This record gives sequence, C-alpha cells and structure tokens, in this order.
Amino acid sequence: MKLNVAIVFLFCQEIFCYNYTTKFLDVPLDHFSFTNNATFKLKYLINDSFWIDDGPVFFYTGNEGAIETFADNIGFMYDIAPIFNALIVFAEHRYYGATLPFGNASFTTPSHLGYLTSSQALADYVYLINYLQTTHQRSDYLSKVPVVAFGGSYGGMLAAWLRMKYPASVVGSIAASAPIWQFQGLTPCENFNRIVTNVYKTATDNDCSAPIQKSWKAIRNITASDEGKGWLTKVWKLCAPLKTSNDVEDLLDWFSEILVNIAMVNYPYPTKFLAPLPAFPVRNFCYKLSGVKITDDKSLLTVIGNSLEIYTNFTKTNKCNKINQTAESLGENGWDFQACTEMIMPMCSDDNDMFENQSWDFKKYSAKCYAKWGVKQTNPELPILEYGGKDITAASNIVFSNGLLDPWSSGGVLSNISATVSSVIIPEGAHHLDLRGENKNDPKSVIEARQFHVNSIRKWLVDFYYSRDKNYFKKTTFFNKITYTHGNNV
Amino acid sequence: MKLNVAIVFLFCQEIFCYNYTTKFLDVPLDHFSFTNNATFKLKYLINDSFWIDDGPVFFYTGNEGAIETFADNIGFMYDIAPIFNALIVFAEHRYYGATLPFGNASFTTPSHLGYLTSSQALADYVYLINYLQTTHQRSDYLSKVPVVAFGGSYGGMLAAWLRMKYPASVVGSIAASAPIWQFQGLTPCENFNRIVTNVYKTATDNDCSAPIQKSWKAIRNITASDEGKGWLTKVWKLCAPLKTSNDVEDLLDWFSEILVNIAMVNYPYPTKFLAPLPAFPVRNFCYKLSGVKITDDKSLLTVIGNSLEIYTNFTKTNKCNKINQTAESLGENGWDFQACTEMIMPMCSDDNDMFENQSWDFKKYSAKCYAKWGVKQTNPELPILEYGGKDITAASNIVFSNGLLDPWSSGGVLSNISATVSSVIIPEGAHHLDLRGENKNDPKSVIEARQFHVNSIRKWLVDFYYSRDKNYFKKTTFFNKITYTHGNNV
Repeated sequence: MKLNVAIVFLFCQEIFCYNYTTKFLDVPLDHFSFTNNATFKLKYLINDSFWIDDGPVFFYTGNEGAIETFADNIGFMYDIAPIFNALIVFAEHRYYGATLPFGNASFTTPSHLGYLTSSQALADYVYLINYLQTTHQRSDYLSKVPVVAFGGSYGGMLAAWLRMKYPASVVGSIAASAPIWQFQGLTPCENFNRIVTNVYKTATDNDCSAPIQKSWKAIRNITASDEGKGWLTKVWKLCAPLKTSNDVEDLLDWFSEILVNIAMVNYPYPTKFLAPLPAFPVRNFCYKLSGVKITDDKSLLTVIGNSLEIYTNFTKTNKCNKINQTAESLGENGWDFQACTEMIMPMCSDDNDMFENQSWDFKKYSAKCYAKWGVKQTNPELPILEYGGKDITAASNIVFSNGLLDPWSSGGVLSNISATVSSVIIPEGAHHLDLRGENKNDPKSVIEARQFHVNSIRKWLVDFYYSRDKNYFKKTTFFNKITYTHGNNV
Repeated sequence: MKLNVAIVFLFCQEIFCYNYTTKFLDVPLDHFSFTNNATFKLKYLINDSFWIDDGPVFFYTGNEGAIETFADNIGFMYDIAPIFNALIVFAEHRYYGATLPFGNASFTTPSHLGYLTSSQALADYVYLINYLQTTHQRSDYLSKVPVVAFGGSYGGMLAAWLRMKYPASVVGSIAASAPIWQFQGLTPCENFNRIVTNVYKTATDNDCSAPIQKSWKAIRNITASDEGKGWLTKVWKLCAPLKTSNDVEDLLDWFSEILVNIAMVNYPYPTKFLAPLPAFPVRNFCYKLSGVKITDDKSLLTVIGNSLEIYTNFTKTNKCNKINQTAESLGENGWDFQACTEMIMPMCSDDNDMFENQSWDFKKYSAKCYAKWGVKQTNPELPILEYGGKDITAASNIVFSNGLLDPWSSGGVLSNISATVSSVIIPEGAHHLDLRGENKNDPKSVIEARQFHVNSIRKWLVDFYYSRDKNYFKKTTFFNKITYTHGNNV
C-alpha cells in the first residue's frame, strides 16, 4: 500500500510519540437530500505503521475540535494497534479544525451552518470508512476489512450511534464517557453539577466545595460596584476589564466552566488536553484553597483566583485570562450551535451543589439560541427520536465506559443493556481516561477497563473474520498475540 | 380519545369495506439539517374502530403513490387489527398523493424536489409515530404504545429500514415483497426479467413467453415505416399516433412495463390495484395468445394487442391507450426522481428472457437522469452505504416475505438472516399478496405466511409489554384472543 504523504506530524504525549499523516477526502455536504451536490474536504489522520495483513481499521469518530487534539490524547488506540495489526484513522468532525465546509464563511448564516448535525457527521464517517475499505484492501480474501469505532465524550456518542445506525460499517464501538442520555426527560438536570460538587468535596480532607459555593455571592457582592469590578479584574488577571453586568455574567460562566473542566480532566498524571495541567488538578486546586484564612469576600476571591491558576496558568506563560474562552483546543462556535439545535442538554443547579442556583428554562435557552444563531429549536427531544433515548436494547457490540469522577457520567450508560451492549465503570476515572495511553500512574480500574475493551474488540473481530471464512484462523497468525497485557507499553 | 374527524372515506375491496379518517400533521421538511425550518402537511389515514386498551399501532409506511391506493389494498392489517386491538394508521410518503411539500411547485427544481429521499421519509414516519404515541395514550400505564410497521414493495423496504434505523420507534416490521437488495453489486441485473419470463412461460401449457419474445422485433419491423406506425397506432388503440422513433421507444417501454405489471399483480382473484384485472391475469393474457394462428408480424401484434386489453381495458371503458402511463395510482414523477437518485436498481435483459436485449449502462442512465432532473448521481451504491447492503445481521424483528411469482423477489431476502430476521417464501404469491385481505381463493402458502406474520407480531408485542411490566398479562385480557385462524374473516 502506498500513501501519498501530505504532511507528517509528530507529537509527543507524556511518554510516547504518536505520529500520523494528514489527508483529506471530498465528502457530500448533504447526505440526506439532493437539493445541491456540493462537497467539502474532510480531514483525517492516518497511521499505517502497525497495519499488517487484513488487520482492522481503528477509526476515531472525531468530536468538537481540531482532530489533532484527540489523536494526541487517545494513546489507547496506538497502544493496542500492534496487537491487532490495525490501521489507525482519526476523522475530523465537520465544522471543526480544518474541516470547514464553507471555509471562513462556515459560521455566518443558518444556510451555511445548518449542515452541522450529528446525522451528517455520522454519514461523513460512513463515507470515509467505505473509501478506506475500498482503497485500503490488502488481499482479495475479504471483501472489506473490518472497522472498530472509538470515541470519547461527544465522539463517544458518535461512536455508539455509528454502530446503532450503520452496523454494516463498524463491527463494534468503544464509546468512552459518552453522555447519550444527557437529554430532556432522560436525566435530571441537576445530576451533572452534583457530580462535579462531589469531586471537589472529596478531593482533599477539607471539603473545598464549601468555599466555592460561597464564591458566587462574593462575586456578585464585589462586582456590584465599579471599584469592585476593577478590583476583581486585577486580582483574577482578566485581559479585558469587567464593565457591565453582562461581563459579570460572562465571568460567572467562565468560572463555573473552568471548575467543570478541571473535574473532567482530573487525571492522575500531568496532561495537556483542555489545558496544561498537573496530576490530580482538582486536588491541587483544593490544596491551594485550604489552610488560607478567609475572612471576607475579597480574601475568598483572592485565594480562589490563585487556585484557578492551576488551570489558567500552569505553564506560567499566560499573561491574562480571556473570559470568553475556557478550552482553546475545542471549537466553541461549532459546539455552541450544536448545543442550540440538536445537542440540547438540560443543566441546572440547586442548594445540593456548589454552583449558583439556576433552573433549567428551555424557553429562555431557546430564545438566546435564536438571537445568536437565527435557528429556532422547538423540540429538545429531537436526539431522542433520532437515537432512541433509553430504548437501545436493539443495539449490539457497544461498550459504554464511564469514570465516576467524570461529571458527564450523569448522562452515561451505567449498567449493561444486553449481552452485547456493556457498561464498564471506572471508579477512579475522569473523562475518558481509558482512551488515553498507558501510564504508570493509571489506577487499576482503568487498566481493567482497557482489558475489557480489548476483549470486546477481539470478540467482534473474531466474529467478523469467522463469518467471512470459518477457516480464517487456520490460515493466519493474526490473532496469536491478541492478549493485551498491561505494562508492555509503559 | 377523541378524533377530530376531517373527511371519512369508505372504500370497498372485494369482500370487505375498509374505512378510515383522513388527517394531516405538520412535519419538518429537512430532518437532518438546520438550513431552514420549513414544514409541510403529511397526510395519514387512521381507523380506531378496533382499538381497545393499550393496543398497538399498526403503521403502514406508505410508498410511491396516494396512500388510499395502499390502504384499499392492504386488507391484512384490517383483518388482524381486531385480534390485537390495534389502531390502524396509513402514512403517505412525501411527494406522493396529497403530501406535496411545495404544492404544485414540488416537482419543479432540485431545490424543491431534493428533499424526496428515503431517509427523510423514514424520519417523517418516526415523527408521526411519536406524535401518535404522545397523543394517543389510553392509560398512563405504559409510557408509549408499541408500534408495528407494515409495508409492501418500496413500502416494505421502508418498513424494514425503519426497524433497522429506528428500533425504538417500531417493535418490528412486516416487510412484504421488499427488494432491499435490488441494488448495484447485490443482485445480477438480469434476474428480474428472468422471473417475469418464467411466470409467462409456466402460466399455461403453451409457453406464451415465446410469442412475446418475438414481438419486439415485430414492433421494430412494423414501425420502421410510417404506414406501419399508423397501423400499430390503430390496432393497439393508442391515443396519440406513433410518429417518431422516440414514440416507438416509449411504446416499447410501455409494453414491457405492462408485461411486468401483469406479473406483479398476478393475484388469484380479481383486483384493482395497479389496474382493474381478472383473476390470474398472466394466465388470461396467455390464454388469449394461445390457439390463434400467427403467420407474420401483423398477426402476432394483432393478437398481442388483443391480449394487452386484459390490463388496459378489462372494464371495457377505456377508449384508447396512453403510452406514457401504466399505473394511474402510482406517482410516476416522484418515483422517476427517486429511481434517478437513491433507488437506482440496475435492470437488464438478454437471450435468456423474453424481453428485448438491453444491457445495464449506468453512465447512460445517469446522463438521462441528469437531463431530466438536473441531479447528478455518481454513486449507485449510495443505498448500500445507508442501509448496509447484504450485511443486515445486526437487525432484529423483521419478517421479509416474498412471492416466487413476483419479479421483485429477485432483490428480496429469500433466506433467514438470524433468529429474529426471518424470510417467508410464498411459492404461489405475486407482489405482496400476503398484505391483501383474506380471500377464499388464497393459496395455502399465503395463509401460512399470514399466520407467520401474526405469530411474529405477537412475539414482538409480548416482548414489549413484558419488558414494561412482567405482570402485564395478569392484568389484561388483551392477548386472550390472539390466535389468528384463517377463515374468520372470509
């Protein structure tokens, strides 16, 4: 097989270096209508260095960000590719990274942006998978090589839905931290913030959710005056001064998003996923909060501002904080549109969590979305109709994994659905820790989860090859080394 | 439950009278993008006279024609509704009958017509099903009543795909004479016409495919001259005189379509589905051909013209034949577009069948489509990507039934796929005979097929109610009378 090498990236994560070639494929803009026949260039990353014989394709269903962000943080696929002889592919989601159907105009109007839906993204992946299968055929022996889907978070939802909707395209899916039930009527809106709170409550001996809970009122008190706004701008090192009450609302959103993000990436070793961070960032955040004397609003916000630097300035290179951005690697415009149309995930807070009280008000949410994007969504249950909601018993060959430290586990599948749709719980895991590369600091539960994934993938592939030819395993040494042993790659 | 009665139709088929109320529901024009938020009125027919307690919805997934055509010919749903306490619904397919998203402008340009795809139609049905479930809720006991899908021909493909893509919306599907494999690379293009030929060959003692096979050359010989064109116009009672060679091509298409149609509706009793017809129309057609002395092209075409009246003028009220129309009840514009975009079903003829030789030429076909509709389809395997082609092992709860007298069985599923995806063969059956109402002339094989359907539906429903409440059957008499006995309704 010959690849036309376009650009070769080399990126090092923690211990390993994962590399890939960047390629593009023309795919239809609209897979479900014939009103136009426009196409656009879908970016994908490919690595064939482990690919031998009729080995499978390991296909990452990209989510809301430039695809390199995910490729550089999904070491698990690289770790297990050698034992399966797999070809590794990471597909970029339309409207993120370099995959912009209308270039710079992609986010201008609904007629440009309206093709940003999960259904269209899934169809892109099916299209790319078919292209890979028909152009990456080693032998004539099999009509097509099998494909295993991997995804984390929204990418995990896509991996699961890909198997549900297109079972002929993927033999099975590893759906890590995929909150497929974080929709209207499926999950109480307060669950998410309660999990975040619990993570902060239990990270250290001193319950650090308590000072956080007090901080909302402190921010409101302080920012009630212009002097206070100026003071907080300085102490929290904001790039732009707080001026209006809207600025204050933005600050509150930014603060709570960072608290959530720290919990999501609360990994047991330093990482650079949403931001450069130390090991156990929640614990580090809380350490900074404890032992400091808090006497009034200003001393509280001073110490919290200091703690926030764990996330905002761990590299000590950040001069000031932009409060309209919490995770540079993610495409916030695209996700904001998706969250306004299909991916409406109700969230709320009450006295049982550490956040400011906020009820879920769909009407208000919808109005805000309309003002921003010009698109009116009247049906927050849309994804339930499209993907079946809680009734997923007809699905097969999916592993849903969830870390209990992960706020998104609130919308996850936390128990087995059937003999072929399984749930794996990782008590010490944050957001899709299991998809990261092996690390000597991995807790036992994530090692076991990865072993479960390998066993599942093995079963799906054995079933596939066997269904094509009952004597396949006599003819090949392919599955000889298929036992995954933790430690080989550390 | 109260229905706002709009219009009540009463239609009598053979022995029974089936009635229904006509209603409309606003559904989104584009289910998979947010470029616009237009809606249109989807027509559906509903009958609640058999509906008791928490009985299921029997939902017909309408195909390429006004929905009444199907409602009036799918007596099976009426026959078995009483034993299941079912609500009967027939949904009209977008761009057919009265369901025209842009009214009279629906067929004008690709930007109007482009939303005519099977994916959009399936999403319409899911939308309507959800509406029916949320508005037709008898008790609070179940969250939603279960839905069983029924469909014949293209409607059968939709019923099967509905279960495959939206298993949370329908508990199972009866897919009658559904040629889901009549696509590029799945079925040899010559199979269809070979089955038609075989039906004519074996309908009577005299092989009547032989004179038909000779007739193509006879038509070409005769119509080579203006005098011959005039002669054939008169003898075949054409409304418009044959003038050009294009007219002759249209005539050949019309003739071969009628031969196919007669085979499709070769039912054992008089029907009015595609046209008013006697029982066993192929046999009747062939009877007229036998015993007549054929000496030359003119005598051959005279007797064939006479035989054609079985289809064109069984009621003796048709003054002349329009060769641009073979089945008034079907929406030929809409289907022509679908056959040019998604539903590209390769057909060809050779010396082993009774039709004029014709190879399958996708390029030529595609060019003709582009000239007509302004839409270019480069990928005839599109529906294989969308619906999985031959790899449907992940599906469940579908019965595929096929009559062996039916040409469309060429693309049908003729053997069991798994424990829950079954194939039923009806050797004496034409096109979805099993979906018609009971008739004293039904062959044994169709009676058995219907019994299989009832048993399958019963199993799907028992599983559904049981999954909602293990004690359901102790609380209700619902399933007491669930054994279907042939003869009750004759």
